[in-house]
Amino acid sequence: MPLPTPLLHPPFNTVRLSHTVFDITDLAASRAFWADTLGLHVTAETEGCLYLRAMEERGHHCVVLREAKEARANHLAFKVWEEADLDRAAETLAAMGRPVEWVERPFQGRTLASADPHGTPIEFYARMDRLPTIHQKYALYRGVKPLRIDHFNCFSPNVDESVAFWTALGFRTTEYTEDAATKKLWAAWMHRKGGVHDIAFTNGLGPRLHHTAFWVPTPLNIIDLLDLMSTTGYVANIERGPGRHGISNAFFLYILDPDGHRIEIYCSDYQTVDPDHEPIHWDLKDPQRQTLWGAPAPRSWFEHGSLFSGITPRDPDLKAEPIVAP
Amino acid sequence: MPLPTPLLHPPFNTVRLSHTVFDITDLAASRAFWADTLGLHVTAETEGCLYLRAMEERGHHCVVLREAKEARANHLAFKVWEEADLDRAAETLAAMGRPVEWVERPFQGRTLASADPHGTPIEFYARMDRLPTIHQKYALYRGVKPLRIDHFNCFSPNVDESVAFWTALGFRTTEYTEDAATKKLWAAWMHRKGGVHDIAFTNGLGPRLHHTAFWVPTPLNIIDLLDLMSTTGYVANIERGPGRHGISNAFFLYILDPDGHRIEIYCSDYQTVDPDHEPIHWDLKDPQRQTLWGAPAPRSWFEHGSLFSGITPRDPDLKAEPIVAP
Amino acid sequence: MPLPTPLLHPPFNTVRLSHTVFDITDLAASRAFWADTLGLHVTAETEGCLYLRAMEERGHHCVVLREAKEARANHLAFKVWEEADLDRAAETLAAMGRPVEWVERPFQGRTLASADPHGTPIEFYARMDRLPTIHQKYALYRGVKPLRIDHFNCFSPNVDESVAFWTALGFRTTEYTEDAATKKLWAAWMHRKGGVHDIAFTNGLGPRLHHTAFWVPTPLNIIDLLDLMSTTGYVANIERGPGRHGISNAFFLYILDPDGHRIEIYCSDYQTVDPDHEPIHWDLKDPQRQTLWGAPAPRSWFEHGSLFSGITPRDPDLKAEPIVAP
Amino acid sequence: MPLPTPLLHPPFNTVRLSHTVFDITDLAASRAFWADTLGLHVTAETEGCLYLRAMEERGHHCVVLREAKEARANHLAFKVWEEADLDRAAETLAAMGRPVEWVERPFQGRTLASADPHGTPIEFYARMDRLPTIHQKYALYRGVKPLRIDHFNCFSPNVDESVAFWTALGFRTTEYTEDAATKKLWAAWMHRKGGVHDIAFTNGLGPRLHHTAFWVPTPLNIIDLLDLMSTTGYVANIERGPGRHGISNAFFLYILDPDGHRIEIYCSDYQTVDPDHEPIHWDLKDPQRQTLWGAPAPRSWFEHGSLFSGITPRDPDLKAEPIVAP
Repeated sequence: MPLPTPLLHPPFNTVRLSHTVFDITDLAASRAFWADTLGLHVTAETEGCLYLRAMEERGHHCVVLREAKEARANHLAFKVWEEADLDRAAETLAAMGRPVEWVERPFQGRTLASADPHGTPIEFYARMDRLPTIHQKYALYRGVKPLRIDHFNCFSPNVDESVAFWTALGFRTTEYTEDAATKKLWAAWMHRKGGVHDIAFTNGLGPRLHHTAFWVPTPLNIIDLLDLMSTTGYVANIERGPGRHGISNAFFLYILDPDGHRIEIYCSDYQTVDPDHEPIHWDLKDPQRQTLWGAPAPRSWFEHGSLFSGITPRDPDLKAEPIVAP
Repeated sequence: MPLPTPLLHPPFNTVRLSHTVFDITDLAASRAFWADTLGLHVTAETEGCLYLRAMEERGHHCVVLREAKEARANHLAFKVWEEADLDRAAETLAAMGRPVEWVERPFQGRTLASADPHGTPIEFYARMDRLPTIHQKYALYRGVKPLRIDHFNCFSPNVDESVAFWTALGFRTTEYTEDAATKKLWAAWMHRKGGVHDIAFTNGLGPRLHHTAFWVPTPLNIIDLLDLMSTTGYVANIERGPGRHGISNAFFLYILDPDGHRIEIYCSDYQTVDPDHEPIHWDLKDPQRQTLWGAPAPRSWFEHGSLFSGITPRDPDLKAEPIVAP
Repeated sequence: MPLPTPLLHPPFNTVRLSHTVFDITDLAASRAFWADTLGLHVTAETEGCLYLRAMEERGHHCVVLREAKEARANHLAFKVWEEADLDRAAETLAAMGRPVEWVERPFQGRTLASADPHGTPIEFYARMDRLPTIHQKYALYRGVKPLRIDHFNCFSPNVDESVAFWTALGFRTTEYTEDAATKKLWAAWMHRKGGVHDIAFTNGLGPRLHHTAFWVPTPLNIIDLLDLMSTTGYVANIERGPGRHGISNAFFLYILDPDGHRIEIYCSDYQTVDPDHEPIHWDLKDPQRQTLWGAPAPRSWFEHGSLFSGITPRDPDLKAEPIVAP
Repeated sequence: MPLPTPLLHPPFNTVRLSHTVFDITDLAASRAFWADTLGLHVTAETEGCLYLRAMEERGHHCVVLREAKEARANHLAFKVWEEADLDRAAETLAAMGRPVEWVERPFQGRTLASADPHGTPIEFYARMDRLPTIHQKYALYRGVKPLRIDHFNCFSPNVDESVAFWTALGFRTTEYTEDAATKKLWAAWMHRKGGVHDIAFTNGLGPRLHHTAFWVPTPLNIIDLLDLMSTTGYVANIERGPGRHGISNAFFLYILDPDGHRIEIYCSDYQTVDPDHEPIHWDLKDPQRQTLWGAPAPRSWFEHGSLFSGITPRDPDLKAEPIVAP
């Protein structure tokens, strides 16, 4: 199936990914990890719930941690340009047969809840509480010095279907992996905000959340985090990296929070704002697409992901034989 | 004068700044500087004219060097979303009483030439020749490893007027300096592509081009360039820095090309895609707005700029007494 | 006067510089600066006295801060190879007409106090209390992440005399500045431990301490310190830099503690262990010897220094006309 | 066996490791790798033989590549303080029953050839041709920007015996791995020049050369080399890393030259000049001693090494069951 043509005039204007809501099982352990080690800044704590933002963000939160019985990804949220875009989004999603529900979320305005074709829970809002800047309060920087949320990465049981759906919402593909034999998509990276991605999809048991990524200034911040985690009891939470992806050209590290939610620390991808920005094609057989430098990813990286609350994933339509990477 | 409200629905969609065309007096000297030292990649050489791009760019050029009798900035160019935006731009500019002319430019599609209210020569196009990616051809990286053009900075004889004009075109102010006494704008940073600026204006004899900036991966690339320039005969071309700006929070270096055209090397500003992104106000009396670390800029930095070809600048309406910085 | 030939067989074996003892006027202010901002690790606090070490050091202290009525440098200390070297040092210094006194110092073994020909107070010891390693306790790293003390830099009223004295003690000159007209030394960098210097001398009102330097991992740690100091009330304590020295090729920053004692943050000089390592000659007229990148140092950097307790400095024999740098 | 006590008064004064002589099979391929990719500077080319130095070195060479039928490590060379040390070395080695031969080597003075107890070919010299400085000729920097040779690492069939021998020559152990059950040494790092090591020994089929290491300024230079190698046909020559060693605390990368000679790129270990510097003990069962961040080394890293010309290695006395790392 050829890659669908990106829309020049999307039905509504999604600005960027906004935040992940995680179900976690021990708030104190999560706070020690996300705030004290990773370095996100706590913006609110309500009963059993912690809100965090990264250092250059002015929106109230990019991560919400909610204490729950089971570790889950709860939903993925996006910010749209204006209130009218929420109405256009509701209309668009309803016309595509997707669920549409208006929900209340603390610190946010009107919020629309829906799901993509495989059931990935997604929400859209136009306005969130704004906070004073802290990006020049350098005494507050901690851990990896996270600057902003960068993207979501999800397992999809059918990447062609995922790409078709998100293209119809106005997302644009920047890089993709294709199975040369079947011409099926194996993985795709899609953006709205002008970087390599706001959201990506990888073939696998899905829907599940593979990781949420945060942008940091330089590779040296990632080295600092590795040194810190490996000498404060978190060495087993380091999963993969550091390295450079072939896809996205970004320098990366993958770590796991105390509940096994995967986090990518990410820097130095490239700008993609041009409407005629050509997607880059990668062959499934090219190992450098995962790691430019050649080192393989561990098996867990291909298999493990966070379940979405209340959603049962299904096996992918494309079978990996043997296991290959996105 | 209060800062004008940014438009949620601009009359046409400018994607980003695109390129500067410079008149230079010695093509061989310019090539040695821009390509061999700074590290931009030559994409075409026609008689008396050199085209260059930065390493992650796929558009044909971000700098054009044209041999001429006198060193001048020729014009500043912007890319719009689609051909229809060019027609909307022409209509908008004509309605504002600005000149509108359709011109031919090599390697570009239809191009609209105009000028802002003080005469700054500007051009708009929708399509430029696209080139194969070189961002992962690391053997081609040279000098400061420039990744992409980042912004223009111009002297304006009346920054309030400049901001009013560019706001009407859809540009959004991210940071600004105000004279507390007169409530007049002293300087403003305005963007389209989601960073701190595509174009900025500083009070001064204008219109003149203060500098063109290029984005690099990390401060260490800037240190590498300083080491290289200072040991290859270019030590006198280093004007200011390295340092961190208060405004934009970016790490910077200012250098001069062989004709005195100023270049900024720039990294690590922040993302500004949110429509409710609040502009940051700076007081003209706060020296940290220029250099967060306190070091003053040299006098040349406030006074020197490139004249635009055929345009006579005028004294600014706001007089500096004594000289203060943007 | 030609540079004296370094000794292949010194009269005693000095291993390295060890520590500076400073008189400071407000222990709380000094602690906030040296420990909380700069990042040195407190190893002991006795009445009115704070001991600190850098992160890779195992000796008990590299800086001692003693509360006093006036801000002064108290003395400079060196570590020798073994106890017998202390006796050889005493014999050598006495034979040179220098004072010799055995003093008690907390956390140290037998300590010899003396002074160089211009009165710089110096001490030698062989054994200091050793502490457990903390270089891999990354949760303890703060501020600029100082790894070790690197060198002292002193004003000398006669650099030729200083170099003659320290060469006789076994120190080796790695770089020097000469006044081409008079063939007098203007400045010299001398080492024992295999880097560019343990101690350096600059022509000026002396003896006074110009600065004490600390080694950090990379230039990015220096940028981090600048960001921190400039946003926590210490912007006026930033004096010069960042930059690269021509002499030593090191990346540097100069800051002032709350009493005006100057500190250099320093990285990336080179190894000098070879006995046939040739000193590098610099002309007093070459501005790149100070800053490879050409930026001049502020006037304060040439004029200000810490007085040694109880020592009256004298004017230099070489007069600067106009002021020139080391 | 307890670690032998380091000598305060060694029989002769070894300054530092000096260079490795490699037998290689294709001089053009080796030159493309060592000079054009890695960035060592060619100082001489004689028939079938290439001499290289790193950027801050003034000695004529730190690597010699000699075209031969088979890829081998030829010998490891050390620099001593003065000519008399060569005579003392000859006397010491002869008294220990080691071979002593005076050999001619281009660009060097009098050279003593010998072997350690397991047959590792070693040479000592006092004077080598000195070359003009190039450390501030930044236009000559290439590849990983290697500054100096840092250390050798060898497989030894009996590390206790190796440590006993080299301690008797005046080398000092900084870190070591012990098998808790047998109290036998598994690996040891030994220095003369004031860093973590000039030479290290690891239990294994030996003698063989495990790797030769070069010092670079920062981890970012290592990332640059990875990007370059992985996009110029050398991705298969990347063996392990980047990462941080627990032992030495250094940031590392291991690569293989076209003949399979292993090279470590290394930065940021610590200073060890104190005579009372305590060796750090590591347990063989602690995986963080190899990689602080926890990632295992590939099997090849434990098994592969360069044979020394004409020397047949023997199995180690300590058997690994299963394979464990140094």
